[in-house]
Amino acid sequence: MSDNEQSDWRNSTIDAAETREHPETAEAVQAIERLRGSIDNVDTAIVMLLAERFKYTARIGQWKARAGFAPADNEREHRQIARLRTLAEQAGLDPDIAESYHTFVVSESKTRHERIAAQS
Amino acid sequence: MSDNEQSDWRNSTIDAAETREHPETAEAVQAIERLRGSIDNVDTAIVMLLAERFKYTARIGQWKARAGFAPADNEREHRQIARLRTLAEQAGLDPDIAESYHTFVVSESKTRHERIAAQS
Repeated sequence: MSDNEQSDWRNSTIDAAETREHPETAEAVQAIERLRGSIDNVDTAIVMLLAERFKYTARIGQWKARAGFAPADNEREHRQIARLRTLAEQAGLDPDIAESYHTFVVSESKTRHERIAAQS
Repeated sequence: MSDNEQSDWRNSTIDAAETREHPETAEAVQAIERLRGSIDNVDTAIVMLLAERFKYTARIGQWKARAGFAPADNEREHRQIARLRTLAEQAGLDPDIAESYHTFVVSESKTRHERIAAQS
């Protein structure tokens, strides 16, 4: 990413003259940039964890196929959702977001398994 | 969660007699349980990180409202998607999953902001 590209957002929102006239705008821009840096760090960590998670689910898929177990396990899914909702509440996150996260990863796993099955 | 509930999956899949007759099934069950433990740990970490992420986006929303900035920033979103796709490739994760993750968090943020706006 070029420096020019990185400063696009700042340039498109405020300019130097406006910042001099409105120091509170400059304060907001700085705060938003700091928070966006933290969001990027969180996203980096989550993408790394998702990479590990999908390695684990791929290995579970292989073990299940080898042992002749069914791919889906609804009881396990319900227990996972309940656990994640409780964790979310404790961490100050809307439990619906934790459940949406679970729906997202499970549906991605299924899509992935179907794609792999279709290729083999 | 009760102990009874935790062992439901094992009971529903194989029983002790079957395990004695088929040691390879027991091996698969043990491997799957170990991997599921790792998945649960990853999910715990991700839910904690999502809790922090939504605190950050809520604060950005407040700063933007105060400074009169537009809530959406399409350029920033495109840069984030490109960055996450690259990170995913480096980590051995399907880049489409990283993009789906981004779509998921952004749409949850928007839903949340709309809900907050509707309440105020």
